[in-house]
Amino acid sequence: MKKFVNDPQQFVPEMLRGIELANPGKLKYLPEYNLIMRADSPRDDKVSIIQGSGSGHEPAHVMAVGPGMLDAACPGDVFSAPPSDYVYETTKLLKSDKGVLHIINNYTGDRMSFDMGRELAEAEDVKVATIIVNDDVAVKDSTYTVGRRGVAGNFFVIKAVGAASERGAELEELVTLGERVNSVTRTMGMALTSCTPPAKGSPLFDLGDDEMEMGVGIHGEPGRRREKLKSANEIVDELLEAVVTDLPYNSGDEVALMINGLGGTPISELYIAYGRAHQQLTDRGVNVTRSYVGEYCTSLDMAGASLTLVKLDDELNDLLDAPAAVAVRVF
Amino acid sequence: MKKFVNDPQQFVPEMLRGIELANPGKLKYLPEYNLIMRADSPRDDKVSIIQGSGSGHEPAHVMAVGPGMLDAACPGDVFSAPPSDYVYETTKLLKSDKGVLHIINNYTGDRMSFDMGRELAEAEDVKVATIIVNDDVAVKDSTYTVGRRGVAGNFFVIKAVGAASERGAELEELVTLGERVNSVTRTMGMALTSCTPPAKGSPLFDLGDDEMEMGVGIHGEPGRRREKLKSANEIVDELLEAVVTDLPYNSGDEVALMINGLGGTPISELYIAYGRAHQQLTDRGVNVTRSYVGEYCTSLDMAGASLTLVKLDDELNDLLDAPAAVAVRVF
Repeated sequence: MKKFVNDPQQFVPEMLRGIELANPGKLKYLPEYNLIMRADSPRDDKVSIIQGSGSGHEPAHVMAVGPGMLDAACPGDVFSAPPSDYVYETTKLLKSDKGVLHIINNYTGDRMSFDMGRELAEAEDVKVATIIVNDDVAVKDSTYTVGRRGVAGNFFVIKAVGAASERGAELEELVTLGERVNSVTRTMGMALTSCTPPAKGSPLFDLGDDEMEMGVGIHGEPGRRREKLKSANEIVDELLEAVVTDLPYNSGDEVALMINGLGGTPISELYIAYGRAHQQLTDRGVNVTRSYVGEYCTSLDMAGASLTLVKLDDELNDLLDAPAAVAVRVF
Repeated sequence: MKKFVNDPQQFVPEMLRGIELANPGKLKYLPEYNLIMRADSPRDDKVSIIQGSGSGHEPAHVMAVGPGMLDAACPGDVFSAPPSDYVYETTKLLKSDKGVLHIINNYTGDRMSFDMGRELAEAEDVKVATIIVNDDVAVKDSTYTVGRRGVAGNFFVIKAVGAASERGAELEELVTLGERVNSVTRTMGMALTSCTPPAKGSPLFDLGDDEMEMGVGIHGEPGRRREKLKSANEIVDELLEAVVTDLPYNSGDEVALMINGLGGTPISELYIAYGRAHQQLTDRGVNVTRSYVGEYCTSLDMAGASLTLVKLDDELNDLLDAPAAVAVRVF
C-alpha cells in the first residue's frame, strides 16, 4: 500500500489531529467524538451548520470548517457514516438559540445516523433542521443510496448557507436556501482508477488498464457503465451532456462550473478538462461566470474527476462572493 | 495511460488555455510564447516578477500568477526548460521602469534559457535581475543540476518578493530579500510512486511495490537512496532530520512548516504527515507558527510529499501575511 499511513485504524484521528495543529486557535479537534469545530462556535446569533459523512473525501468536510462555511464536521471512519451518538454529541456541542442545521449527502447510512442523532438532540431541546444533498445525476439508486447520491455539488450548498448564516439568517430560511441551491446543482463523475482504503490495503475495485468507470460514486460504487478509456475531450463531453440535459441548463443561463479532482489526478489535467467544458458550454450558449478547479470532494487516491454545474442568480452570486476561510490554504 | 489528455503535444497549451478561461479579465494566456501573465501587468511602479520552469509541477508556476505573487510564468513543456526566446519575449512584455526579476529553480537547463533570455532583453535596455532557488537538501549535485535543486521552497521566495514588489520595493532590494528567504529555506522530498509524463505514456522510472525513493527530485531524479516502504511517521522523521540539521533549525526558532504533495497523494495523508512533523518539531523546541499543507510544487501524478522549513522573522511574517490572489481557488 503506497500511502502515508501508520496504523490504518488511526488514519482519521491522525488526520484530524494534523488539521487542528495546522489551525491553532481557529479549529478544535475533539477526539472523544471524532469532530472538528470552529473554536468560536457556537454563537447564539448564528445558526450552527454541521456536515457529516464518511472520511476519505477530503477536503470535504473536515477541511471545510471555518468562517462562512461549516461550524463543525462530524466524520466517520473512511467511507463509513459517523456513529449516531457522535452526531448527537456534535449537535449538542453546537447548540445555538437560532438552531442547528445538518447538511447530509444522500447516503442511507449517513441519513440513518443523522436522523437518530437529531432525535436524541431534539429530545434535549436542541432545534434542528436538515438539508439533503443529492446532486449526482449518474444513477437513480445506488449501492448505498435510495435516490440520487450527494457528491461535490454539496460544496455550493455549504458555501451559500454558510454565508447566509453569518448574516443572521433563520434556520427555516437556510433550509429553503440550501434546498434551492441543491435544486439547481447537478454533478457527474468518472474514475480512471480505483482507490485504496487504508484499512483494506488494496484497491477497492478492479478497473482494467484500458478501462474507465463513467458515473462512478465517491465510494467506488458502480456508475452508468464501464467503457474503454477515451480522450479528455470525449470524457468531458460525455459528463457534460449528462449534466446539462438533466436540469436542464439552457442557452442564456448563467452557471458556475466546477471540475473536481477525485484525489489522484493532478491539477494540470483538471484544467485541461475545465477548458474543454468551458468551451462546450459557451458553444451551447451557457454563460460560465464562476469557475472552481481543484479538489473539493475526493475518493482517497482515486484518479478521476467530476463535473458540476450550478445555475446562478443574483442571490447565489452574492452568497458565493461572501468571505470564507477554511483549513486548506494555498498561499 | 490513465490521464485526462488529448494530444500529448497539446498538454501544456490546453492546460494554459483552461487557466485563462477560468480567470477572465485577470490572467492572459499568450499562445505564441506559451506564457501566462496578469492582465494588469506590467506597471512602471512595480518590479515585474517572472518564474519559469518545465511544466508538470502545477500549481507551480502557471497557477502562482496574480496580485502579490508572480506577474508572469514562462513554462516549458513537461519537465523541459522554456526556450530562451520565450524567456526573452516574456521579459520584454513585462518590461517595467523598475525592472524585471527572474526567479529560477536551480536546474542547468532553466538557468541556461534564462541567462540567454536575459542577455537578449538587456541588449534592448530591459533591466533584469535573477534569483536562484536551491532549497533541496537531498543531494549536492543531481541529474540535471550542478549544486542543489530548487523545489517547493520557491513558493516562499515568490510570496515574499511578490508582496514586497506590490509595496514598491526596488529590484536590488527584491534580490536581497529573495536570496535571504532562500538562505533560510530547506526542503526534502520522497516518492512512493513514479509519475507518468503524457508524451511518454508510461512511468518515468521503476519503483517496486515495497519501495520508496528518499530525497527524490521533482523530475524523478534519484534521491539519497531507495528504501523499503516505511510508516508515515518513520518517513516524516527521516525527512525532518535531514531538513532540520541542514540549516540547522534550532530550539527557540520560529518556523513555517510546509507539507507539499507531489500530485498523486490525497490531502488526508498530507495532514497525517503534517501532524507528525509538527509534533516532532515541537519536541525539538522549534516553534511552528505558519502551516502550509497541500500541493505547491508537484511532479505530475507522483505519489509522495516534501517537507519544507523556513526560519521566520518579523519581516518575513509580515510579507507572508500580505494579501495575494492566484488562479487556484478553493472556495
